[in-house]
Amino acid sequence: MPELRYNILNDIWVIISKERAKRPHDYPLNWEDKKKTGKENCPFEPGKEYLTPQEVFAIRDPDTKPDEPGWRVRIIPNKFPALKPEEQFFRTSEAIHDKMGGYGFHEVIIDTPDHERHINNFSIDELVLMFTAYRERMKQLYEEKNIYYVQIFKNHGKEAGKSLYHSHSQLIALPRIPKRIGTQIKQCRSYHMEKERCLLCDEINFELREGIRVVHDNDHFIVYSPFASAFPFELRVVPKEHLDDFTMVTDNMIYYLSKAVQIAVKKLDKLLKNPPFNMMLHTSPPRRNLPYDPNYFYEIDKLFHWYIEIFPRMAIHAGFELGTEFFINPTPPEEAAKYLREIKINTE
Amino acid sequence: MPELRYNILNDIWVIISKERAKRPHDYPLNWEDKKKTGKENCPFEPGKEYLTPQEVFAIRDPDTKPDEPGWRVRIIPNKFPALKPEEQFFRTSEAIHDKMGGYGFHEVIIDTPDHERHINNFSIDELVLMFTAYRERMKQLYEEKNIYYVQIFKNHGKEAGKSLYHSHSQLIALPRIPKRIGTQIKQCRSYHMEKERCLLCDEINFELREGIRVVHDNDHFIVYSPFASAFPFELRVVPKEHLDDFTMVTDNMIYYLSKAVQIAVKKLDKLLKNPPFNMMLHTSPPRRNLPYDPNYFYEIDKLFHWYIEIFPRMAIHAGFELGTEFFINPTPPEEAAKYLREIKINTE
Repeated sequence: MPELRYNILNDIWVIISKERAKRPHDYPLNWEDKKKTGKENCPFEPGKEYLTPQEVFAIRDPDTKPDEPGWRVRIIPNKFPALKPEEQFFRTSEAIHDKMGGYGFHEVIIDTPDHERHINNFSIDELVLMFTAYRERMKQLYEEKNIYYVQIFKNHGKEAGKSLYHSHSQLIALPRIPKRIGTQIKQCRSYHMEKERCLLCDEINFELREGIRVVHDNDHFIVYSPFASAFPFELRVVPKEHLDDFTMVTDNMIYYLSKAVQIAVKKLDKLLKNPPFNMMLHTSPPRRNLPYDPNYFYEIDKLFHWYIEIFPRMAIHAGFELGTEFFINPTPPEEAAKYLREIKINTE
Repeated sequence: MPELRYNILNDIWVIISKERAKRPHDYPLNWEDKKKTGKENCPFEPGKEYLTPQEVFAIRDPDTKPDEPGWRVRIIPNKFPALKPEEQFFRTSEAIHDKMGGYGFHEVIIDTPDHERHINNFSIDELVLMFTAYRERMKQLYEEKNIYYVQIFKNHGKEAGKSLYHSHSQLIALPRIPKRIGTQIKQCRSYHMEKERCLLCDEINFELREGIRVVHDNDHFIVYSPFASAFPFELRVVPKEHLDDFTMVTDNMIYYLSKAVQIAVKKLDKLLKNPPFNMMLHTSPPRRNLPYDPNYFYEIDKLFHWYIEIFPRMAIHAGFELGTEFFINPTPPEEAAKYLREIKINTE
């Protein structure tokens, strides 16, 4: 039975995941080489649907049935979930310690039926299908009363935490707004309170004028390396139109998003030779679950701005970073952006 | 010229370290196997002092000279420093972005002259010397006007970010209080404001009564796995006497600290088979540099409580953890503590 526990000293919540419980000898450490799962043993192959939990969402060819081949993107519950929908949603304490029930959703998004295709060489069509599945499933989960946030993420390469070879993304739907998102909302709020403008709108307008940290821009998106990038070659992919909520994105926007992400990822791939990276989608929480602020009267759609971030994993976070939350980035974003602007890639 | 940059969206500061500047092809990624540096090429060997910058502090045998053999612990500037004392301390902005000069200290603490000894088998004497050096150098750096915090840390094992084989710790003296320490101060402050008691004093008293998360305790220290551990087998080593400031610790306390840390580390070593881990020392910032809070009138010595934390690196932080600051811990601390209590080790 998983539970959420509050770490009062650090003001963070932690998922204590007994379902995935690991005893000392269960740690074939993640960073050890994992055998590449062959096609024949891969539970994510079409025709092997019986090896996974039943699908909760799929984009399928006409006249095909759930849990049978014919899907383009397939979403299934994680076999070893960190949080579970059967668990109760409750808040309680254990003497001085606070905790919550391990309610939530942990799902795997199988991006493609093809064992050998990965995000570093996805076509626009593949990206469009993947992002469409993200949007549709997020929409469904935001209907659940006690879901406060849905984090969608992708781990590319084993050093970025990927453990199964076949390309997939994951989502975890949480009964709390995570700390980092809470901080971003707070920052956007105080910026907006003072200036009545959106923080990310201001930032991308400034970056477009400056140019030095911009890697690419199309009619609807900008790809840039943030001024205070915590990771070398870190990238943000941000829509130029202000919109807080990814579930409201149109098909047309998903097409332009896919173009921008394809360029970002292909450039990283070529420049850094298929580096491991994490890709995270950030969006506003469902409005009903926002923390109430008596000093602030604006709706969240005025202040949050959805975006995608990409963290290449070129270095290990060591004691300094973990102890302080201070990051050291050895490649200034202006240089990262210059290298990425200059490298030539082929796109469709 | 390094600089500190403010990441407004995430409310963190980042060191952009041009000194360590890395171009794309400079990334022989840290996580790739590094060749073990042999004794003959090791810059940390006695007799090879000329290979390093000049020492800034050492514990030495009588009648030996700086930068010559005869030291037991030797502290030198990092050859590729993230921050530098020659840099100017200033705060400025670049249009909408805030930044600071890259002023600070980045030093290497060579824990032992012996190439083959590591913290997982240090004697009490070796630990006492190491912690004494930490205290003395920290005391010196806290005299520097624009140093707001000194983070001392140790990376054990390459998966924990260690890059040179010979045992060493590091310190970075910063011109700002880091975010994580700021959060801890804030948490201790609001706890104290409400209860007029220290948060960590309360926590260790509770854990001593409960017992299930305690690994070891001696007259002066407790070793336990925190209720909401973010890392599997995470440990805190906390002094039972309330004291905010590690620089004020007595020699007698350092002896008991060394006993507690030796047990913690040897137990982890035996149970998890020499796991990679990070060890961080947390203490209060110099009083003069504390953020002023008009609602709070207590001195920091009433509220902060120095301690050591140990994070074994049994898993990779992936997109979920990096995107949300939510951690998933697959080994409940009660189980971790039970395994660690039961495992037998030899100490002197």
